[in-house]
Amino acid sequence: MLLRDIHTPADLRKLPPDQLQPLADQLRDYIIDTLASHPGHLASSLGTIELTVALHYVFNTPDDKLIWDVGHQAYAHKILTGRGEHFPTLRTYGGLSGFPKRSESEYDAFGTGHSSTSISAALGMATASRLQGNTKRNHIAVIGDGALTGGEAFEALNNAGLSKTNLLIILNDNGISIDRAVGGLNRYLTRLTSSRRYNRLKEHVWQRLDGDSNDRRLRHSVGIIQRLTGLAKTLALGKSNLFEALGIRYFGPIDGHNMSQLLNTLGRLKDIEGPKLLHVVTTKGKGLRQAEQNPIVYHAPGRYDIRTGDQILTDDGDSPLRYQEVFGRTLIELAEHNPAIVGISPAMLSGSSLNLMQEVMPQRVFDVGIAEQHAITFAAGLSAAGMMPFCNIYSSFAQRAYDQIIHDVALQRLPMVVCLDRAGLVGDDGPTHHGIFDLASLRPIPNLTICAPIDEHELRDMMYTAQLPNHGTFIIRYPRGSSVHSDWKSEFHEIRVGEGSLLREGSDMAILGIGHPVNDALTAADELQTQGISAAVYNMRFLRPLDTQLLDHIAKAGFRRIITIEDGIKKGGFGEAIMQYIAERHPQVTPHIKILAIDDCFVTHGSVSQLKSDCHIDKAAIILTATAPE
Amino acid sequence: MLLRDIHTPADLRKLPPDQLQPLADQLRDYIIDTLASHPGHLASSLGTIELTVALHYVFNTPDDKLIWDVGHQAYAHKILTGRGEHFPTLRTYGGLSGFPKRSESEYDAFGTGHSSTSISAALGMATASRLQGNTKRNHIAVIGDGALTGGEAFEALNNAGLSKTNLLIILNDNGISIDRAVGGLNRYLTRLTSSRRYNRLKEHVWQRLDGDSNDRRLRHSVGIIQRLTGLAKTLALGKSNLFEALGIRYFGPIDGHNMSQLLNTLGRLKDIEGPKLLHVVTTKGKGLRQAEQNPIVYHAPGRYDIRTGDQILTDDGDSPLRYQEVFGRTLIELAEHNPAIVGISPAMLSGSSLNLMQEVMPQRVFDVGIAEQHAITFAAGLSAAGMMPFCNIYSSFAQRAYDQIIHDVALQRLPMVVCLDRAGLVGDDGPTHHGIFDLASLRPIPNLTICAPIDEHELRDMMYTAQLPNHGTFIIRYPRGSSVHSDWKSEFHEIRVGEGSLLREGSDMAILGIGHPVNDALTAADELQTQGISAAVYNMRFLRPLDTQLLDHIAKAGFRRIITIEDGIKKGGFGEAIMQYIAERHPQVTPHIKILAIDDCFVTHGSVSQLKSDCHIDKAAIILTATAPE
Repeated sequence: MLLRDIHTPADLRKLPPDQLQPLADQLRDYIIDTLASHPGHLASSLGTIELTVALHYVFNTPDDKLIWDVGHQAYAHKILTGRGEHFPTLRTYGGLSGFPKRSESEYDAFGTGHSSTSISAALGMATASRLQGNTKRNHIAVIGDGALTGGEAFEALNNAGLSKTNLLIILNDNGISIDRAVGGLNRYLTRLTSSRRYNRLKEHVWQRLDGDSNDRRLRHSVGIIQRLTGLAKTLALGKSNLFEALGIRYFGPIDGHNMSQLLNTLGRLKDIEGPKLLHVVTTKGKGLRQAEQNPIVYHAPGRYDIRTGDQILTDDGDSPLRYQEVFGRTLIELAEHNPAIVGISPAMLSGSSLNLMQEVMPQRVFDVGIAEQHAITFAAGLSAAGMMPFCNIYSSFAQRAYDQIIHDVALQRLPMVVCLDRAGLVGDDGPTHHGIFDLASLRPIPNLTICAPIDEHELRDMMYTAQLPNHGTFIIRYPRGSSVHSDWKSEFHEIRVGEGSLLREGSDMAILGIGHPVNDALTAADELQTQGISAAVYNMRFLRPLDTQLLDHIAKAGFRRIITIEDGIKKGGFGEAIMQYIAERHPQVTPHIKILAIDDCFVTHGSVSQLKSDCHIDKAAIILTATAPE
Repeated sequence: MLLRDIHTPADLRKLPPDQLQPLADQLRDYIIDTLASHPGHLASSLGTIELTVALHYVFNTPDDKLIWDVGHQAYAHKILTGRGEHFPTLRTYGGLSGFPKRSESEYDAFGTGHSSTSISAALGMATASRLQGNTKRNHIAVIGDGALTGGEAFEALNNAGLSKTNLLIILNDNGISIDRAVGGLNRYLTRLTSSRRYNRLKEHVWQRLDGDSNDRRLRHSVGIIQRLTGLAKTLALGKSNLFEALGIRYFGPIDGHNMSQLLNTLGRLKDIEGPKLLHVVTTKGKGLRQAEQNPIVYHAPGRYDIRTGDQILTDDGDSPLRYQEVFGRTLIELAEHNPAIVGISPAMLSGSSLNLMQEVMPQRVFDVGIAEQHAITFAAGLSAAGMMPFCNIYSSFAQRAYDQIIHDVALQRLPMVVCLDRAGLVGDDGPTHHGIFDLASLRPIPNLTICAPIDEHELRDMMYTAQLPNHGTFIIRYPRGSSVHSDWKSEFHEIRVGEGSLLREGSDMAILGIGHPVNDALTAADELQTQGISAAVYNMRFLRPLDTQLLDHIAKAGFRRIITIEDGIKKGGFGEAIMQYIAERHPQVTPHIKILAIDDCFVTHGSVSQLKSDCHIDKAAIILTATAPE
């Protein structure tokens, strides 16, 4: 087997070119076989296998710098760069990261995870090389057509256009981001690909005209036409193509699964100085029928049958719906009664379950592309014009829209809802994707109402409440995965804004939580009961406004210990908000407060339960804290 | 005088078209006269006067929605929409805002201040109109060529291209943002403008060919050419122009100071459905010679002579340099010794004083355009490749790069420096521009070192320290305006990371500050001394890591009261960080802590001293807090 002998790209480069496709085939098999039982981002990686082989073959990595935008398409890259044996540990605790990571390999030139950063980073490195006097090193950003819709990528293109750096942008065009790619850019790329026929025809005609031109007048006309063409060409250099308009030489499109075409083209581009873009057309999911046919489902399909490729769907039976699905279904119910409601997602329609509403109310759901900043301001515009937008963004991606939430939404007190999905620890995707900064970073922003539901019923009530008149801006955060009950469809009740509640009576100590972790507080309290400790559990619900009346009551109740629990970063978060209030109003109570939250560090990847345990924010941590000596 | 009779755009629309240029002239005079003694954003507003008159004349504002990107070019708009009399109160406390503001006028469809939001907001409103069944309303975003480099604008263009909304984007192309516009887009727009000549020539040639074509073979060739042209045209619709590539019909360029051309073109566009862009070429500073010649200086020139237009420069004598200038000069000194240092600014070269370094080391300074996200990741790329970037961003604009600071910089522990200029209250520019969220929003991010200098000497030392090896990521924040000493050029000293210091001995109480506000603490302490209160003053310097050793010492010193002072938002900020530490380690001391910081609200515009007084974060507030009864 070829693959077994490739430990580094240097080994790869010793192969004759005709061995590269067989190697790619083995890589593809290895990825398909491994991911069948070790779930990961399948379809993206299958689409870039030939490209990965060709890049490492043609370029001198790691001296040449290779940056994978988003990075979930980099599995072949990981395998070819000394991580093949460990590949089955992918996305598991202590194993390989699902994304490129500088600390994992010198071949991972820049860590990724969030979209649209690769051109900026590669341009930075290319600029560094120039300043360091290295004019030969190549700097390659591989970016999908979806990621190219992110504003940062455009900012980088605009900046790269006038640079004189050795920057090669590989546009990996598969027409899919996670959901189907949207927007003008996507349509443009499709046209660009089909315009190859036009280019061929044009060349043919000019050749014919040239050959025919014996006639004097014809020659005169041809002369005019050629002058015109020359002028057009000069101007066209700056405008015939979106990328060339920005000063970036455009090459392609080429077939991203044709190894010899890849090798030839990359070989030629290697020595062309300056910023350039190669348009490579790939098939997401290439090589696995089901993934090619349904790249959205097979983006991250979970387990599948290694022989047939069919997804292995576990029958959830009566188990609770996922929060995202409750969000999606509930929004439809609300939208049926409130015609002002619209749904907005930055390229995460199915991940957020907004696709459910899209199916029944396509006019009222907007997938704006990978564009978190625009998503929020677009929603703000809708709100300013009288609509009630629910903008659903994954918590860690919403960091991209931090300024827009402050400047366009909160400052103008616009009535709308931002649902932060995947809040808290997300598990396998790791540090780039954990939604642990939302509570702390949004808490300082005036005018916001920030809440988190303990379960799907409360999620429904929060959504219901948020869309009632006169409620300003609501932030509702909830985690990835299962909610709590088997009967998700509760009746709607309005929640009093800023009101928490006592869930479980107790006299020795109090556990205060927000969001899903309150469930851990409840089970911890049950267990503490068996140890003779009576713990009250409070569901605080709102980070802003805090239920100060309830806190006054708690402070005065004489609890021996007050424990706060949250699935976010400690500094500036929920626990500190409680501590701060108590310290100002009931300072004598502060010694009794213990905050359970993620301490000052980024959290690695692994199972959520493992990570919660590591971070001391699980049931065991609550019990340990409750039972620790004074 | 015409202008006096225009109270609303409805009055304007009663004028015959030939009165509009005279009105524009009066507007221009009024703005020039008023701003001579009431400083504001002069040059931008002078460039859009004819455009403003034409827009309000042709469109039915406020039913048609008009959004000014950034908004400092909207002075004529303010005057024409009922705010003419109050115009001299512009940017003063209690007076008109320097930017469009929904709460100020129904004609301000969307509040702006930060760049590149207008297309998103207008698209949101246009989408709302469609959903509400109003297919006639127009939604107009006026955006400069500088603002168009911001990624959010591109995200919006990509999204708008496939919408069927009545969106009109006015590209106000003056080749200047605040500094000269940069990047591929700017060059492209210039070419687009000059390509009009090409279009005229092309038409001329085709006409001639057509007339000449009696010859059969020539006619045959012309036939081929025409078929080719037809095919080209079909394809070109999707790609001949950057905007049309994205699905947005492109019109122009037209002269933005030619009233009849503006009226004709806007009149025609009014009834063309769907998303479209009109390219308007304007002269920034139009009508004031000095402003036309030097639009960068006259962007916000301060006071000037009402007759000559010359700036009135006050002789600062021995008064301290501004912090920004100390930054600019110091960076040159450091860069002379450390070849790894580079400077990066998102379109604020002169505002940040990076222009000083650009003059002497042009290869090592990068103006990346209005592109905060890219600025940070580009700097991260430079850092990953061994350079030592100083990326200078205004504090409130850095909110745009929040995710990049987390995801690209802190997570990878990249050695670089982010200087947050204009931190704290900035004064006249108001709520969109105050840099009050930086401390609270950055404090939760692991791996960052966050500090603020008390004066320019400490700024120099912090910059010096930050560029030494093995220091990870430094955030240095400092305010707009004057530093402290007359001798700015101190020797460099390395600061111990995370070390605060006692500046002034005292026994009754302690005042703990960070950054420039520590100066208020010192003068307050002097004044308290005269009242018989002995106050120690601590310069904490670092928000991350906190000097816990010093805090332990302070907590044990038996101070009657511990006051913290900062020029940022309270929730999650410096004071709460102190409170949090004390509450956990020295809970008995918490009753003595009083936090002075900006309470939970956005802060209006006005003089910095007025606003500091309003927010209770000035010297008087310290004294009041120190002398208040227990």
